[in-house]
Amino acid sequence: MALRGLLRLGELRIRVLDMAQARKHYVDRMGLHEVMEDADGLVYLKAWDEHDHHSIVLRETDRAGLDYFAFKVYDDATLTALAPKIEAFGLAVKEVPAGVYPKSGRRLEFVLPSGHIMQLYAEKEVIGNTMGYHNPGVTPDEGVVRGFRINRLDHVLLGGLNIDECARLFTEVFDFDMSEKIVDAETKSSMAVFLTGSTKPHDVAFVMQPEGGRFHHVSFFLESANDVIKAADLIGKYRIPVDVSVNRHGVTRGMTIYFFDPSGNRNEVFAEGYVHYPDVPTIVWDTDDIGHAGFSQDNVMRPSFYEVLT
Amino acid sequence: MALRGLLRLGELRIRVLDMAQARKHYVDRMGLHEVMEDADGLVYLKAWDEHDHHSIVLRETDRAGLDYFAFKVYDDATLTALAPKIEAFGLAVKEVPAGVYPKSGRRLEFVLPSGHIMQLYAEKEVIGNTMGYHNPGVTPDEGVVRGFRINRLDHVLLGGLNIDECARLFTEVFDFDMSEKIVDAETKSSMAVFLTGSTKPHDVAFVMQPEGGRFHHVSFFLESANDVIKAADLIGKYRIPVDVSVNRHGVTRGMTIYFFDPSGNRNEVFAEGYVHYPDVPTIVWDTDDIGHAGFSQDNVMRPSFYEVLT
Amino acid sequence: MALRGLLRLGELRIRVLDMAQARKHYVDRMGLHEVMEDADGLVYLKAWDEHDHHSIVLRETDRAGLDYFAFKVYDDATLTALAPKIEAFGLAVKEVPAGVYPKSGRRLEFVLPSGHIMQLYAEKEVIGNTMGYHNPGVTPDEGVVRGFRINRLDHVLLGGLNIDECARLFTEVFDFDMSEKIVDAETKSSMAVFLTGSTKPHDVAFVMQPEGGRFHHVSFFLESANDVIKAADLIGKYRIPVDVSVNRHGVTRGMTIYFFDPSGNRNEVFAEGYVHYPDVPTIVWDTDDIGHAGFSQDNVMRPSFYEVLT
Amino acid sequence: MALRGLLRLGELRIRVLDMAQARKHYVDRMGLHEVMEDADGLVYLKAWDEHDHHSIVLRETDRAGLDYFAFKVYDDATLTALAPKIEAFGLAVKEVPAGVYPKSGRRLEFVLPSGHIMQLYAEKEVIGNTMGYHNPGVTPDEGVVRGFRINRLDHVLLGGLNIDECARLFTEVFDFDMSEKIVDAETKSSMAVFLTGSTKPHDVAFVMQPEGGRFHHVSFFLESANDVIKAADLIGKYRIPVDVSVNRHGVTRGMTIYFFDPSGNRNEVFAEGYVHYPDVPTIVWDTDDIGHAGFSQDNVMRPSFYEVLT
Repeated sequence: MALRGLLRLGELRIRVLDMAQARKHYVDRMGLHEVMEDADGLVYLKAWDEHDHHSIVLRETDRAGLDYFAFKVYDDATLTALAPKIEAFGLAVKEVPAGVYPKSGRRLEFVLPSGHIMQLYAEKEVIGNTMGYHNPGVTPDEGVVRGFRINRLDHVLLGGLNIDECARLFTEVFDFDMSEKIVDAETKSSMAVFLTGSTKPHDVAFVMQPEGGRFHHVSFFLESANDVIKAADLIGKYRIPVDVSVNRHGVTRGMTIYFFDPSGNRNEVFAEGYVHYPDVPTIVWDTDDIGHAGFSQDNVMRPSFYEVLT
Repeated sequence: MALRGLLRLGELRIRVLDMAQARKHYVDRMGLHEVMEDADGLVYLKAWDEHDHHSIVLRETDRAGLDYFAFKVYDDATLTALAPKIEAFGLAVKEVPAGVYPKSGRRLEFVLPSGHIMQLYAEKEVIGNTMGYHNPGVTPDEGVVRGFRINRLDHVLLGGLNIDECARLFTEVFDFDMSEKIVDAETKSSMAVFLTGSTKPHDVAFVMQPEGGRFHHVSFFLESANDVIKAADLIGKYRIPVDVSVNRHGVTRGMTIYFFDPSGNRNEVFAEGYVHYPDVPTIVWDTDDIGHAGFSQDNVMRPSFYEVLT
Repeated sequence: MALRGLLRLGELRIRVLDMAQARKHYVDRMGLHEVMEDADGLVYLKAWDEHDHHSIVLRETDRAGLDYFAFKVYDDATLTALAPKIEAFGLAVKEVPAGVYPKSGRRLEFVLPSGHIMQLYAEKEVIGNTMGYHNPGVTPDEGVVRGFRINRLDHVLLGGLNIDECARLFTEVFDFDMSEKIVDAETKSSMAVFLTGSTKPHDVAFVMQPEGGRFHHVSFFLESANDVIKAADLIGKYRIPVDVSVNRHGVTRGMTIYFFDPSGNRNEVFAEGYVHYPDVPTIVWDTDDIGHAGFSQDNVMRPSFYEVLT
Repeated sequence: MALRGLLRLGELRIRVLDMAQARKHYVDRMGLHEVMEDADGLVYLKAWDEHDHHSIVLRETDRAGLDYFAFKVYDDATLTALAPKIEAFGLAVKEVPAGVYPKSGRRLEFVLPSGHIMQLYAEKEVIGNTMGYHNPGVTPDEGVVRGFRINRLDHVLLGGLNIDECARLFTEVFDFDMSEKIVDAETKSSMAVFLTGSTKPHDVAFVMQPEGGRFHHVSFFLESANDVIKAADLIGKYRIPVDVSVNRHGVTRGMTIYFFDPSGNRNEVFAEGYVHYPDVPTIVWDTDDIGHAGFSQDNVMRPSFYEVLT
């Protein structure tokens, strides 16, 4: 009990069009730490306050988007227990042996009804956050927290079909809660679903799209709204393309900036948001208040939200 | 399985010497909302962003301190499952029927090895946070968030004996993690243990005391360090006795103020702190760095930390 | 010496189309304090941390915009000394006797080359900020700081012709500094000039407009960027029309939100910005970097900046 | 008019016992920029957002304290005009030719009634804040704002005798305002006087001491209370001796930390505080509320405030 099963979004592999530019964006400007480049040229990154070896993998290719996303689970027994449940839900589960993904134990891989490749793993090398576990202090050495002052990978928003089915997988098989939902005011059909397995407002979300497997954004957690403002200053300084500058989401109450990496993949920095517990009812927004649901400080839903994905 | 079992610290009953003064402190100044006074004169309070009917109960009597603390669990089946496990751990479990505690379902009650009365319950009337669950917006009406701008009850620190046994109950029976521990540098014996069943740095903690059942402090969660500063301004304005003004704990990395209610019970307002996951090693502090462990912005452990409890 | 001559923007009279709506906006929502309604129905407002009787006057009529703006000067002798200098600059100065403007001493009134009516006065009734001048404390009683938590009137931006002439008046006659200037990259002609007589980045600014006497915005000073975010939450909650949500100006480095009162007059809340001293060179922006000059967090100059004035 | 005469505290020469340790403190940890070491081993520092060549000079010797403090004035004519006025006040004025103090024009030097050496100068080499004056942007390159994120030298507090006479010099000769004053509740005698020639709550202050020429603290301005908290984290990390950790002064309303350099000189980082104008009455605190006047978040005046000076 306590927090078990799927713990958190632990890894995303993002396709980029130019690794040099991607490095400049994610490492030099955003301030993620590069921990490894593998023999195939994949680049492995982590945020400073993550303990595992990496959380973001960049792969250079000719089409932007998301290769896969992966949740870390509590232990190997969880993997063993989940595999048949996922199969019973109707998804084919492939097991990937330990070591195929560097620094990582075995993985379960399956394709969501939304067309996205999802993985689960229980083991990844722990390298810590530079402060150690004995009298660690509260602040790492200068230079460790840098750029956008990103603490950790937070969540991912995916675009595709069958998002209710995705929600059913997460709630029925993974015991997640649907924290929030956006529905069409007339038809009541789901336009977006927000799912959490923790006390965060969401760990993963899905938005309806006419085609599957689309990548809406990856979100990074900052310590405070103040850090969101400082990140906005750097985004402006570096002339990074901005989708929506500093605002607060109605959904999640999180402070946000949406911006794009050089390949057109949308990034978010995120702070605040409420504390979720599983005994709280799902919040439902409808399209009558879609502006506030999306961006509650100016109440304008941007068309790019639905139209610009990779 | 996501967050299951014990969800959170859901209720504390605090003994106060004078209800009028306590009301002025907790309601008028701190800004908790009074939701009920029962026939026995007990006063029920909640923080604005809590959804359940109440989280703090005040009882007037002639000795300050803590009557009991209670965790909310995921569902009634959890109670049923936990009762024999707690008994097997060696604690006598008393069942309190629904309704004995107002607005509440049945409770399990037992005495911890530290001498504290602990309860578990699965049901409490939900009254919401004033914003509803349909197009709720992000900000309640003015006047709802007031005083110290307290979002919710966060954690409790208890003083007593046998704190390792308490930790064993929480980790083995309740599946909590020990996020941090303070040990004597020479003897390695535990001086304080910090336990979490969520992604918070702690939900409950125990500090060694020569006698059992002591109440160290109740802590309330604020949205930001900025709100901690604003709370400090009000604490100063109202001449509320301060134990330790604005500082950051080494343990938990939380921003804090320690102050006292008019009965001498210690309160804390708290913000920030890291995100905990169960796959992170326990952080161990020892007495060689006790100042930084306690108050990392000036590295001075206050004697009152060990000596002033109710 | 020290700060003398024109001290600060002390009063603006704003035309509103509907006083009930204007009151709801400026008093109920923004949180300005209504101090008086006069026999003609003019409504007088102040921000909590201003000491003079009022700083904003609302007048109901059928066209939005600005009746006049007024600077407070150091003393009556300053008025006497300035009158002939303003005349020598080429502007006709009208003296308005004490009492014509309520709570106010005599005023000098003249029309700027930009078509705006400007006044100077040395005396206005002091009513304080509720905290007194003897052991005042640092925080007023709850309810005094409310709504958008506005500390004070900060500056005004005016649209019109002959803005270089306006700048010349302020720098040569009033000893202001031109802190910043936006020029056309090719022609080098002035598009906007920012003028300060204090350590603020600006007390008044002018932007080129094809016709004179236009009102671009009135700006209110908040204590922190955090308060700007909280104001944005309320602006969103009340569905106040937003021109540009949370952003930072390149010019002045101030955090900003532009929004509209119910009559279409633009308001701003403002925080941070650098400390200006008269020995620092004028900062010049040109149209090659106009996006960053305007809104440095997303580098997009909004057409409304030039086109929407009252 | 506008801001003229004495503009700001522009330079302090601080005596340190060990230059290597002082460098580590002021440059490596606090994050001031070292701009020069002269032939005599004096080290020249500036804060990132200052435009002049330096504001702090460190001199190694065997006794800590303050050699002198210097205000920058508007122009050379101001120096010429002030010299006879200072003499008329009763102080002997020595003129120091240009170049004696590196990068600096001629200076007037005199000894205050409190025993401190004060200087005035109108010229110092301008080197800017790294961003230039043409399309400068709002954020310097990473690494420029570092350590405690100090924007600029703010004020100095001096201990000595005859503080009313010092106040008279500043108000009568330099046209400063006495923004605040602390008096003995019974005798009404002045215990501390706070003086400003700008819109800051103070540029210089004097506290009664039994002997003259004492140095209480030098204060550096940070952009926000949030930065004060971050500075406190670093102060704790580096185990810098703390006098008073994060608190708010009643006097000035500024957020503060008092700490010591390795030679025992007190430093302060400071943020917020009200906006002062010369038409606001002097705020008077008396010893009945001295705790709140000093440290308004816990209402405890520290004996070190009166007893620890260099």
